[in-house]
Amino acid sequence: MLPPVRSNMLPPGSVIGILGGGQLGRMLAVAAAELGMECQIYAEEENPPAAQTANRSTCARFDDYQALKEFARSVDVLTYEFENIPLETVRQVACIRPLRPSEYSLKISQDRLNEKIFLREQNLSTASFFDFKDEADLQRALDDTGYPAIIKTRNLGYDGKGQYFLHRSGDIHEALSALNSAPAIVEKVVDFNTELAVIAVRAEDGTICCFDVTATYHEKGILRRAECPADIHPVLEERVQYITTTIAQALEHVGVLTVEFFLLGNPQDEKCAEKRLLVNEIAPRVHNAGHWTREGCTTSQFEQHIRAICGWPLRKIRRHSTVVLTNILGDEIKQWAGFGDEPNTSLHLYGKNEIRSKRKMGHIIRVRDRSEKN
Amino acid sequence: MLPPVRSNMLPPGSVIGILGGGQLGRMLAVAAAELGMECQIYAEEENPPAAQTANRSTCARFDDYQALKEFARSVDVLTYEFENIPLETVRQVACIRPLRPSEYSLKISQDRLNEKIFLREQNLSTASFFDFKDEADLQRALDDTGYPAIIKTRNLGYDGKGQYFLHRSGDIHEALSALNSAPAIVEKVVDFNTELAVIAVRAEDGTICCFDVTATYHEKGILRRAECPADIHPVLEERVQYITTTIAQALEHVGVLTVEFFLLGNPQDEKCAEKRLLVNEIAPRVHNAGHWTREGCTTSQFEQHIRAICGWPLRKIRRHSTVVLTNILGDEIKQWAGFGDEPNTSLHLYGKNEIRSKRKMGHIIRVRDRSEKN
Repeated sequence: MLPPVRSNMLPPGSVIGILGGGQLGRMLAVAAAELGMECQIYAEEENPPAAQTANRSTCARFDDYQALKEFARSVDVLTYEFENIPLETVRQVACIRPLRPSEYSLKISQDRLNEKIFLREQNLSTASFFDFKDEADLQRALDDTGYPAIIKTRNLGYDGKGQYFLHRSGDIHEALSALNSAPAIVEKVVDFNTELAVIAVRAEDGTICCFDVTATYHEKGILRRAECPADIHPVLEERVQYITTTIAQALEHVGVLTVEFFLLGNPQDEKCAEKRLLVNEIAPRVHNAGHWTREGCTTSQFEQHIRAICGWPLRKIRRHSTVVLTNILGDEIKQWAGFGDEPNTSLHLYGKNEIRSKRKMGHIIRVRDRSEKN
Repeated sequence: MLPPVRSNMLPPGSVIGILGGGQLGRMLAVAAAELGMECQIYAEEENPPAAQTANRSTCARFDDYQALKEFARSVDVLTYEFENIPLETVRQVACIRPLRPSEYSLKISQDRLNEKIFLREQNLSTASFFDFKDEADLQRALDDTGYPAIIKTRNLGYDGKGQYFLHRSGDIHEALSALNSAPAIVEKVVDFNTELAVIAVRAEDGTICCFDVTATYHEKGILRRAECPADIHPVLEERVQYITTTIAQALEHVGVLTVEFFLLGNPQDEKCAEKRLLVNEIAPRVHNAGHWTREGCTTSQFEQHIRAICGWPLRKIRRHSTVVLTNILGDEIKQWAGFGDEPNTSLHLYGKNEIRSKRKMGHIIRVRDRSEKN
């Protein structure tokens, strides 16, 4: 390891400990290596995607506190690549080495109720939601939201998991039975026009920058496609970036943060910025909707995250291309040769051995000249 | 590993064996991982730069034929990341798995005499050169070349190593003594205006594409800076790409090939294309002068090489930015924080533990909008 030049910048050769071993960790490890950093992965599974591009990995459970402490002692800084990590796990390591982003960012974003309350405290609009403890609570909430509504577990929800639609009162019993007493909230289903995502990064010194706004398209709760630039009014673009910046600042977040939005009105109508823009979700990490940054910009969400958590200054973001990301889900990976044939398409595969239905196996980025529109 | 879709395309999950463990192997391993391929490095040193981003590595000598054979049997295709590998080493593995580029590309390019004779056979101009066996031979050659001249060892020369300048006849004895009977040639020193490099890639089916021409600047035989685009007349640009294509075709090369040129006249004078353009060297691999492709183009030399050796079609090359590469040599790595501070600069460090004088420790790419000129 090289000697530090300034006390807050971790020198090349430092070791970044990443909690989680998926594709986000894999791409973070590549970005870290480019900057001369080393990575050690901590994951519950054997030979996860991230371990394949990292220097070292630990395979142990998130409740193996002995292994966690050894892991923390062998690295210089810690980060997490997904938000479904028990808070107690990060507490075990955060007292040994700096954890970036902090436990607070994780606590807010891993629990839908904490997240909604936090957003309300920032005076930011969300879909109307209610916490509920039992069927009577739920009934009262539904009187307010009306139908359709959606029950979402407070924790461990991703890619549409832990979500139950209520189209009519007759759906309540089945949903509650599937929920199986897990803590949950109920939300009014929003009839949105467009979904948007903003990838922002905040450095240790409080500097924040945002990548250009991305339009996202989901199927059954799973991201299918993302396009940048999003075809929206410049006032809306500014507004969603402003909201994202507000959130990053309020969390005192260090690293990449992603905010997802529902836009209810016409994306070309600047007046929507006032009342028809709702915050949907916060992810305290690099995000699937930002994978295009690797192909479309002078710097990627992965490089920016590594810089931020290592105490380095951020890169200036310049988007040089027009991009469309499409996820490769489950069996679609069998079409790899077709994707490999496209001359203007970057193919990314994650090294997952087992194909499961709707599992994210890779993605493609179709890249065009910046002068072309999406 | 996924089942092959077409017989000539290696499927994701295949293992690429890379002979050599330096920074070129490191960047190739990253490009391979992005395409879902695995890499195994074979290098003589412990924990070389490439092993840090690859799935697996073997540490053994290039004359350990048992280890070489085991290595070859554990991979699906073989490549090399530098040309100073004994021919017998590649013969040991090439009979077990496909070697791309071939032994022939290596044989021609690792020996300066083979290379010059090959170029002459293609009717391509080089600096005038002579093979010599003893001092009398050398004297006769110098009568022809005049002074200054340069003695270059036939093998194992890179970054200015194995080169001895002769400014006057009095230098001969010292040079021959330093040469210590190594096979060598003597070359007329060329008074060039500009050095140029072309990175080309040839697919298995014979398709060839070239990246934009790069202007290179050396100090004491080591690449210091490279700029793309090179500020040269379009006719010259076409001509150097044409010559590079001719060479790749004649070698039936599969993978990336780099050709370096001396341009003797004014780079804006198209007439130089006829007589004042000399081929200097061929490298049968990705090249330091092409590192900018990772930041400046929709596809990099590393991705194109992996595609070619795996039997995949090539990507279309579009340069979206104007770039300047600067190498970080030896002690200059201690200035890492300064490079890390530049908002428009990509920093790449190679994970080398030991700093040696003039050793390539990393590089930076300064990236600007394509509309700006170098």
